[in-house]
Amino acid sequence: MTPPVVILVRPQLAENIGMCARAMMNFGLVEMRLVAPRDGWPKKGARQASSGAASVLDNAKLFETTRDAVADLHYVLATTARERGQMKPVFAADEAAAKVQDLAQGGSRAGILFGPERMGLSNDDVALADAIVSFPVSPAFTSINLAQAVLLVGYEWWKLVSGGKAPIAPTRSSPPATREHMLAFFDYVEKELDAVSFFYPPEKRDIMMRNFRNIWHRLEMTEQDVQTMRGAVASLVGGRQGTRTRRD
Amino acid sequence: MTPPVVILVRPQLAENIGMCARAMMNFGLVEMRLVAPRDGWPKKGARQASSGAASVLDNAKLFETTRDAVADLHYVLATTARERGQMKPVFAADEAAAKVQDLAQGGSRAGILFGPERMGLSNDDVALADAIVSFPVSPAFTSINLAQAVLLVGYEWWKLVSGGKAPIAPTRSSPPATREHMLAFFDYVEKELDAVSFFYPPEKRDIMMRNFRNIWHRLEMTEQDVQTMRGAVASLVGGRQGTRTRRD
Repeated sequence: MTPPVVILVRPQLAENIGMCARAMMNFGLVEMRLVAPRDGWPKKGARQASSGAASVLDNAKLFETTRDAVADLHYVLATTARERGQMKPVFAADEAAAKVQDLAQGGSRAGILFGPERMGLSNDDVALADAIVSFPVSPAFTSINLAQAVLLVGYEWWKLVSGGKAPIAPTRSSPPATREHMLAFFDYVEKELDAVSFFYPPEKRDIMMRNFRNIWHRLEMTEQDVQTMRGAVASLVGGRQGTRTRRD
Repeated sequence: MTPPVVILVRPQLAENIGMCARAMMNFGLVEMRLVAPRDGWPKKGARQASSGAASVLDNAKLFETTRDAVADLHYVLATTARERGQMKPVFAADEAAAKVQDLAQGGSRAGILFGPERMGLSNDDVALADAIVSFPVSPAFTSINLAQAVLLVGYEWWKLVSGGKAPIAPTRSSPPATREHMLAFFDYVEKELDAVSFFYPPEKRDIMMRNFRNIWHRLEMTEQDVQTMRGAVASLVGGRQGTRTRRD
């Protein structure tokens, strides 16, 4: 599991560098390289914007040129929203993640170039790359924030190497209800409903009852759910009878 | 193609609201709802942070409670990184996008709740939801920026409805080379290399030549590529001969 190197080329705002670090850490990317950051490095503001991802910033390596920054890598991807007429393969973020992972399994390290906020990568930067990464975005609004571009690449890479499952699962506080308990609950509720002529007219009784049961089936109730619902019905029955007693 | 409604519950910073609008527009999400923003609404700073996604902000609807904000919807998803013991289905972002799209095809509208920056959604907010969305993130660093959470949901939704292809494709400036031109190029280069005894020793000539051709085959050359390379070789040959002539 060798994550790609994130290479920020001539980034302008320290705050964006910090937000890139945060996005990287969210998805297990650890190595940031900075090519000629506009305002120098280290730079105030980056650390706060990283919201705790300071280790990525502390370990960031500084380079004068993009060529220097990619020298020890085996494959380079350039992120861009525009076709550069350079006839390189173009990957969406998920395809890029798959390529990076393929390379890693063969022992090769990949780096991904991200251009300056305002202009994006220069054609000379793109010329250093083996392939292009371009994000599927709405054609009505294609301008993606720098840290969000880093996030999408990291997200797809993490999704691939982690299996992409949601990190939490619903905890069942109670086991699923046995069919015996479900059916006993139905019998009980229907008896009470029959007592107040809910299933009316009589010729529709069967279908009404079936529909009624199917609503409950959709719930996939637990033992606890059945007890709660049975208690609620019993309270309604008891309360109604109590009221009637008082009225009588 | 009915995009989900993005519902920001008690957002704290106007700048984050603006960045959410930008992330939404990147992926074709148009409807933002705001539940009790901490600093009131409209609020200075949001527009600039939206980087041009002002239409989302201008059309944002304001609500006092989460319950009001979801009233006209048919399905509600709550984003959270923590299990809430509420036994709701849990979706990763791509699964959530698929659910939203399924619902839309049946004519139902879905909304997605995003909690305040610092605390996330309250348990009461989560209780209003049909299901939970949780992002696959590195367990070492799970705190996701608000706009980036919005971005991931939008990204997966757009990927689904758009097909997810990269928005640009390499333009072939020249058609692929015919095999006739490729083979003629090989013949020419090999003739010149033979003239300077490149394929040596003689018993390895065949395998060296095959390896040499295979390097070029990997290039999937265009007509233009073949002309460029042939010209480069001719220049080397001519220059060398010129040098030799001068030396002689």
